[in-house]
Amino acid sequence: MQIDPTLAPFFAPKGVAVIGASTDPSKLGYGLARNLIQSNYQGAIHLVNPKGGKLFGREIIPSIRAIPDPVDLAILLIPAGATPAALAECGERGIKAALIGSGGFRETGAEGAALEMECLRIARSYGMRLIGPNCIGLQDTHLPIDATFLPPPGPLPGDVAFISHSGAICAAVIDWARGQSFGISRLVSLGNQVDVNETDVLAPVAADPFTHVLTLYLEGVSDGRRFVAEASRITPEKPIIALKVGRFASGQRAAASHTGALAGQESAFNAAFRRAGVIRAETSEEMFDWARALAWCPPPRGRNVAVLTNAGGPGVTASDALEANGMRLAELGVETRRALKEILPPAASLQNPVDMLASASPEQYAQCLRLLLEDPAVDAVLVILPPPPMFTAGAVAKALIPVIHHAEKPVVVALMGERLIQEAVEHFRAARVPEYRFPERAASALAVLAQRAEHLQRSSQPVLPCCDEERQKARLILQAYLDCQPAPADDPNAFLPAEIAAALVEAYGIQAPIARLARSADEAVLFARQIGFPAAVKVASPDLPHKSDVNGVLLNLNSEAAVREGYLRVIENARQARPQARILGAHVQPTLPAGQDVIVGAVQDPQFGALLMFGSGGVEVEGLKDVAFALAPITEDEAEYLLENTWAGLKLKGFRNLPGADRAAVKGALMRLAQLAADFPELAEIEINPLRVMAHGQGAYALDVRARLRMNLP
Amino acid sequence: MQIDPTLAPFFAPKGVAVIGASTDPSKLGYGLARNLIQSNYQGAIHLVNPKGGKLFGREIIPSIRAIPDPVDLAILLIPAGATPAALAECGERGIKAALIGSGGFRETGAEGAALEMECLRIARSYGMRLIGPNCIGLQDTHLPIDATFLPPPGPLPGDVAFISHSGAICAAVIDWARGQSFGISRLVSLGNQVDVNETDVLAPVAADPFTHVLTLYLEGVSDGRRFVAEASRITPEKPIIALKVGRFASGQRAAASHTGALAGQESAFNAAFRRAGVIRAETSEEMFDWARALAWCPPPRGRNVAVLTNAGGPGVTASDALEANGMRLAELGVETRRALKEILPPAASLQNPVDMLASASPEQYAQCLRLLLEDPAVDAVLVILPPPPMFTAGAVAKALIPVIHHAEKPVVVALMGERLIQEAVEHFRAARVPEYRFPERAASALAVLAQRAEHLQRSSQPVLPCCDEERQKARLILQAYLDCQPAPADDPNAFLPAEIAAALVEAYGIQAPIARLARSADEAVLFARQIGFPAAVKVASPDLPHKSDVNGVLLNLNSEAAVREGYLRVIENARQARPQARILGAHVQPTLPAGQDVIVGAVQDPQFGALLMFGSGGVEVEGLKDVAFALAPITEDEAEYLLENTWAGLKLKGFRNLPGADRAAVKGALMRLAQLAADFPELAEIEINPLRVMAHGQGAYALDVRARLRMNLP
Repeated sequence: MQIDPTLAPFFAPKGVAVIGASTDPSKLGYGLARNLIQSNYQGAIHLVNPKGGKLFGREIIPSIRAIPDPVDLAILLIPAGATPAALAECGERGIKAALIGSGGFRETGAEGAALEMECLRIARSYGMRLIGPNCIGLQDTHLPIDATFLPPPGPLPGDVAFISHSGAICAAVIDWARGQSFGISRLVSLGNQVDVNETDVLAPVAADPFTHVLTLYLEGVSDGRRFVAEASRITPEKPIIALKVGRFASGQRAAASHTGALAGQESAFNAAFRRAGVIRAETSEEMFDWARALAWCPPPRGRNVAVLTNAGGPGVTASDALEANGMRLAELGVETRRALKEILPPAASLQNPVDMLASASPEQYAQCLRLLLEDPAVDAVLVILPPPPMFTAGAVAKALIPVIHHAEKPVVVALMGERLIQEAVEHFRAARVPEYRFPERAASALAVLAQRAEHLQRSSQPVLPCCDEERQKARLILQAYLDCQPAPADDPNAFLPAEIAAALVEAYGIQAPIARLARSADEAVLFARQIGFPAAVKVASPDLPHKSDVNGVLLNLNSEAAVREGYLRVIENARQARPQARILGAHVQPTLPAGQDVIVGAVQDPQFGALLMFGSGGVEVEGLKDVAFALAPITEDEAEYLLENTWAGLKLKGFRNLPGADRAAVKGALMRLAQLAADFPELAEIEINPLRVMAHGQGAYALDVRARLRMNLP
Repeated sequence: MQIDPTLAPFFAPKGVAVIGASTDPSKLGYGLARNLIQSNYQGAIHLVNPKGGKLFGREIIPSIRAIPDPVDLAILLIPAGATPAALAECGERGIKAALIGSGGFRETGAEGAALEMECLRIARSYGMRLIGPNCIGLQDTHLPIDATFLPPPGPLPGDVAFISHSGAICAAVIDWARGQSFGISRLVSLGNQVDVNETDVLAPVAADPFTHVLTLYLEGVSDGRRFVAEASRITPEKPIIALKVGRFASGQRAAASHTGALAGQESAFNAAFRRAGVIRAETSEEMFDWARALAWCPPPRGRNVAVLTNAGGPGVTASDALEANGMRLAELGVETRRALKEILPPAASLQNPVDMLASASPEQYAQCLRLLLEDPAVDAVLVILPPPPMFTAGAVAKALIPVIHHAEKPVVVALMGERLIQEAVEHFRAARVPEYRFPERAASALAVLAQRAEHLQRSSQPVLPCCDEERQKARLILQAYLDCQPAPADDPNAFLPAEIAAALVEAYGIQAPIARLARSADEAVLFARQIGFPAAVKVASPDLPHKSDVNGVLLNLNSEAAVREGYLRVIENARQARPQARILGAHVQPTLPAGQDVIVGAVQDPQFGALLMFGSGGVEVEGLKDVAFALAPITEDEAEYLLENTWAGLKLKGFRNLPGADRAAVKGALMRLAQLAADFPELAEIEINPLRVMAHGQGAYALDVRARLRMNLP
């Protein structure tokens, strides 16, 4: 993996200068010096303060320029106002990386923000990289280095890295993890991110051989597209779990199409995480529960789980939790059951969950676990261990651990209780076996292991073959339209004429039955005669995006007289409903036979670029919110995902007395529209509503297409 | 609250005899004697064993008949085979209650089950009540008594009672609760429930003045109707939280209607818990998280929450979690913000979440909390406390507690971290302030407090006025039909003729446009002429519950010729699709104008009796599973709940270009069908599909009604 060499001093500094090292224990500069020294950091440590003196038996250097070699990282813990000058001195001294721990910058208002920009300007002028300001610092438990000012002790060495937008969360996580004996490999507190952001540090942290899993606390991302690209490079090697907060904070963006209204920030984040293979946690506990399992367990081959227990109740709880998490109870082989029978008392249950009864000994636990792991029908095992009445949980743990280490299948343990299981907890943690206090959490960890395994198995299929020709055709259509326009429109309601929008999707190979704009009833009849009956008539107005809202659509008009009357009626209806609307006439189209109507749309997300939507049309698109999103362009797998995760998509398979429809045509249309939206970022929104899907092999037709341009690209 | 006096000896025994008290520390009879004595139980303790001797300095009594007064509870810990004889001796001795701890009964097979029934027979003959066998025992930390054989220490005294179907879960919960310093008031392990079951102990446990909340671990209920009745009596006084497991274990029951197919055991449990005001937890952690909040906090007046924090990140997490749990961020008053401004530094955020910044002192925490609690727009406060950099979390806790105790609004605390917050944890626990390790769990506890408050505010409206007339009419219809039948049908596909089913719902005041069974095309035309055009024709067959599956329905037939042809066509279609089906002819009905079609049905749940279903008809009933359930009969509030919790119900309000429909008529139909199903348990299934709902004030019509009888009532 390529790593930005300018970031190297943050992660493997040869020498660290603490600017603002202080002999006053209430100062951050004291805490940082203490942690750096006590963490057993092996590089050079330079304590700097104009007051001079001694600290922890070391001479304090009075000026930055007097710092001897080696030094490649400066940590600044001085008042915000003094920081720019100190930073410049660091630059002069040739230091290429600085971490600003102090607060007093952007988070306090405009003045602080200006100071922060001044720091960035100075850093840039010296080719220096910055982490912070207003952050807690960095830790690496294996290098080792503790470049934070938090009260000791720091985290235990471990396999999980933590990257955080919040310093308070870092402090809480370090303390919580220590209390849980949960180890951390690297920790990065990003602060105000004036320079280095969450995406920048992904690759350097992932490159750490001690880090097996990356966990992220995100309040957003700095550049969505780059985040997806970077994370996508990492997840095939190491899992990333993200807790993205601020879910409900973002207001709805102003939008004129269904797609625009429904494509909130969260839909885009979910689509982006899915694309990048990033696992999204909903709570902090979940994130670290999952991280342990991902760090310590091999991936399962499937979702079939055996439950091994010494009591019925927790077995039922575990079964429930497994099913609720999309896992299955494995069906044990005859051989396995026969072998279990030999070991266990007659009243034991040999079905899954295997209930060995309260008398189960450490040996029975170990033997049964080995048998379950040997069964080819079993992909993973959940062991339940309440305090056994006749033995200690610690003895059971000791018997189980060699079996677990020997297995190539994941085993997680639900250790129920607290004091009576403490010894077992310690054995399991030392042996890197994930244990949880409740079966529900163990089940959720297994589900994430399965999700990860499936992500690794998924082949990244090619998206559509190169679309040069389509792109050129669409470019010409758009250009020809714009050339005729008096001035570029940037009104959010300035939709493209329907025939231009239809021509665009047709350029990308989506069939859009010709809609011709009639400006009089006579013209409507003429077009209907050309197109053939039954015809459909739809009012044409740039101000009426939802035509059926104003009864502006009539279908199945079977005669010239009906078309004539229909033309007049839709215009009259629209006038009555919206007297202000500019009405251009009505579109005349063939009426297609019945089929299933779905909606396909795309918007440009400000963070992640083109975002595709698929779902139920009609009342259900907004009422039921039956929609799913993917980042454009999409693979066929992703098209399949959209179909599998919406009611609109499931119905296409056929359902009871509803006949199946042409799923392949829908997937094709999804891939094509996604490509169009990705190729033309100036298409702010484009929506096919409805896409009418015919029977198998009969295709899908865009019956109406709306598109809006955004001429001033950012 | 009425309490069964025969259960009194279990909860306040005057003297306890331990039958099988043993000097061998590996025996249950040793553990029980030890716990009973060490728990400081103040009644008489009698240790009984034919071997005699001494235990814990007490004389062992060699025979049951030699036990001196007082003794009203026997605890038997002897081999299963010896238990019946000992039980008989206890009966002879005049002991009126016995707890059988030993295993070896029903859980081991048929022989054990017979032994268990023998015990029950003996107990009944002496008027003796039984708990167990195969259970861990009873605890009351306030009486006090520890009548379990678990290794010490038992739980701390507390406010939460725990009643459990699983002994292993009891053991784990006691150990876990002790480790968490979480107190328990009473604990009951029910074992095999040969006599006393979970419902029996509800009232005696709720009557305990030290118990503020009841928590239940349920693997089912013994008698659904009685459980609902008992729990309903308790929940207005004390909250009940249930963890009901075995969610996925139950197979689908065989069913012939949509209602039957969808009304799984879980739907019935959810409806029953809702009716009884029982809060359902999904995980054990949730149950005890919620129990603490319910035991210690006053109910909030609404769902508006203020968040008080010293760091931005956890504030955002808390806001997300509150919204995800259906709570709102309170909009703080101008006064409050002005007062906060005076206390806090300029960079602090005075909007909700109130971020006091990392420098926040214990005094600032306390002052701000007081201000937030005084704001009338605030119903509850979530305080976030990561380890504060400049102070100890313990000092903050000490400052907050008096403010919290003084408030009449609930306050929950998210204490983030582990070691650095330990002192604060202890202060809060001692002061009975609920604290959680993560903001997400604190938010979920607040949501349950709000749910509880809303439950208490909900008035129990009367159900339909007395339905004597309706009942009598329906009874006559049913009787007349049965009198004409050659033999009572008990075939699951033996549906009532459609016109009889329609007459039943009409008897209860639901309009069902006359459907007449035509046995020839001529008859169909005759009926159509009488009913008026346009007519609808539907094939009539006891073997075709889903007529449209076989193209057996034709609507909008406008002429006699069309009706004639239609009659022949639906019969031909049905024949082709199902050559085996018995075809009786076709029903002729008026075709009603368009409206919204919904489905309303009821089944008899084996546990809880009549269960009502409401939802989307058509493809959506089974595909989207857009349905909700309630126990019948229902109140208007419950009808409203069914409408609010389904897409079918939401659409009735009108949605974009879909006009609103007659919600009142739907609620009426729901209440009436529920009453019918409750009145006639012999109606195994009854379903109106569709119920066509017209515009406001225009009513709702049952277009098709299917009903199946179950003649052999259990």
